[in-house]
Amino acid sequence: MTKIPKKSDFPVGQVRRYLETGPIVLVSSKWEGKTNIMTLGWQTILEFSPSLVGLMISGGNHSFKMIRNSGGCVINLPTTALTDTVVGIGNTSGSEIDKFAHFKLTAEDADEVDAPLIGECHASFECRLHDDALVEKYNFFIFEVVRAHVASSPKHPETLHYIGDGVFMVSGKVISRRSQFRPEMLG
Amino acid sequence: MTKIPKKSDFPVGQVRRYLETGPIVLVSSKWEGKTNIMTLGWQTILEFSPSLVGLMISGGNHSFKMIRNSGGCVINLPTTALTDTVVGIGNTSGSEIDKFAHFKLTAEDADEVDAPLIGECHASFECRLHDDALVEKYNFFIFEVVRAHVASSPKHPETLHYIGDGVFMVSGKVISRRSQFRPEMLG
Repeated sequence: MTKIPKKSDFPVGQVRRYLETGPIVLVSSKWEGKTNIMTLGWQTILEFSPSLVGLMISGGNHSFKMIRNSGGCVINLPTTALTDTVVGIGNTSGSEIDKFAHFKLTAEDADEVDAPLIGECHASFECRLHDDALVEKYNFFIFEVVRAHVASSPKHPETLHYIGDGVFMVSGKVISRRSQFRPEMLG
Repeated sequence: MTKIPKKSDFPVGQVRRYLETGPIVLVSSKWEGKTNIMTLGWQTILEFSPSLVGLMISGGNHSFKMIRNSGGCVINLPTTALTDTVVGIGNTSGSEIDKFAHFKLTAEDADEVDAPLIGECHASFECRLHDDALVEKYNFFIFEVVRAHVASSPKHPETLHYIGDGVFMVSGKVISRRSQFRPEMLG
């Protein structure tokens, strides 16, 4: 069983630190008393303040209507410790199983939205629908991150980056070029 | 000087293999006879067919108007061999320098769009503007990848993933869970 890392509040304007790198995330949602989790790799940061992220949630997902109806979700960041869980979640449907129960994950209450945090993940970002202008045409949701919870350690968790066909790239090693940046480009 | 890898045509419907992982990319453009290059990390795949990608191009970039006016660009994928070049490109402006000349990069002709490929990159994706509905509000461009050029080796290039504050995560190691995927989930 994966342990539950202790998390602290994290500035919502800095979620790019975890999402700009393009990791596979677990999106949790709740609607009419039921929860669900989906895997997602098609996401981008859009703005620092307000903290906006864009998510392409395919209409074929059981989560699509739950998120469309509730107007909220939580973006959770799994590390490589959860690789098999991520694969399992991506290969099953919430129309058939209760994913929290099936994958022995801990649903924790969010502060701002009505969707569960996944305790075992390294970070959880509570999101509220900000703009649905492109949902009908592209299934592209723009959310505002209204609250962020991040484990303090490790500083650079090893994350999964999907390349298709069942294969992930692993990211974790870091290199700094801070000294080469103009001051106004940092942060 | 970085060598120029030999590239082959690549199926445009499979560019997720290189972009879904969230790498920093170099976006090249051309307008009124001048070229430019910018770094970009805020991008997402949106659709396989047509091959759609969404790019958030901040209005403060010199490239913004060039791409807005020309309706095209090339998304180039640098590897870690180009780390210092990537940092240099991100910390300079095309309003002051000719980036191809300054960074000794090779501008190659594209097949479908009027913007240069960057020869030294591992892959180049020619893009044509598909939908500008969210450009005014979010600087979010939806492009169709109309032609893709990819180096055949290495199969999994080491790429850069920006986390802010001058620091990059490096991705390259791969792990396969192919055997755990349902057949219809592969590809």
